[in-house]
Amino acid sequence: MDAAPLARAESLIRSIPDYPEPGIVFRDITPLLADAAALGEVIDALIAPFAGRFDVVAGIEARGFLLAGAIATRAEVGLVPIRKAGKLPRPAASVSYALEYATATIEAHDDLPEGARVLLVDDVLATGGTLVAGHQIVRSLGGEVVGSAVLLEIAALGGRAATGDVHAVFTV
Amino acid sequence: MDAAPLARAESLIRSIPDYPEPGIVFRDITPLLADAAALGEVIDALIAPFAGRFDVVAGIEARGFLLAGAIATRAEVGLVPIRKAGKLPRPAASVSYALEYATATIEAHDDLPEGARVLLVDDVLATGGTLVAGHQIVRSLGGEVVGSAVLLEIAALGGRAATGDVHAVFTV
Repeated sequence: MDAAPLARAESLIRSIPDYPEPGIVFRDITPLLADAAALGEVIDALIAPFAGRFDVVAGIEARGFLLAGAIATRAEVGLVPIRKAGKLPRPAASVSYALEYATATIEAHDDLPEGARVLLVDDVLATGGTLVAGHQIVRSLGGEVVGSAVLLEIAALGGRAATGDVHAVFTV
Repeated sequence: MDAAPLARAESLIRSIPDYPEPGIVFRDITPLLADAAALGEVIDALIAPFAGRFDVVAGIEARGFLLAGAIATRAEVGLVPIRKAGKLPRPAASVSYALEYATATIEAHDDLPEGARVLLVDDVLATGGTLVAGHQIVRSLGGEVVGSAVLLEIAALGGRAATGDVHAVFTV
């Protein structure tokens, strides 16, 4: 991967200070997504370490859906949405995990072929709680997680220690 | 487009009776998404009438994100998420519309190049309220809607009358 195009793509991530609360810098990826060349480059970069090693991409609602959809057609694999609780009529797997002041639950249908090799995708790696829950969802459906890919890792939050095999295109 | 592969893809849409309430048949597209071949075929079918005529695909949260992401890399265009209210730090356009017993609001950032030709994408066309609001969002950002594409049209709900130029891969 040539570094120059990714540097341009990275420059399209907009930092929004004090959102959603004072002291937090929100990383807004929408300018990057809207740029066709930058989007293509980061999708290739998300796939690269796992190329040819996954049959399904599982995206975590909601921003993970944008990236997982893009990866699915680029890599010609199936697409499994991992949804927030209450969105799926027949969830076959459901995992709850702790947030700072609450818990969240994610769910998926059982659309995985037995033994499917799954790439987990989300936009941002923060504390890692969501990706760890995503691993549990995939395993409980009989799939094998070959790794996780995120656009942006927020290194100070230490999520990598929990998720291990995560590939981040950008790190702040 | 050969009809046979699309017939197979259509057979992967699962009908779930009495969800989310008695008398409603929910159309679950997750088995279709999970099948790499079927997904590729329906993405090509979504794009076909608009091929070469759009610079950006705008997907409506949340299932529209899955399809719009897939279209973006297949057609090599930019990707703009149209989100539910309260998800974006700096919404530049916001449109409210009526649901059966409530109102909904969708929003977008101003990441459209001036005069961008936009394909609107969602999973299902029901009454058309969401797509009409999506048109308003795109126009208020300075974009031109070249058309709308949905995976599934529920013809009895009459949404086509409101949205006009919508292309549906499947109709029930």
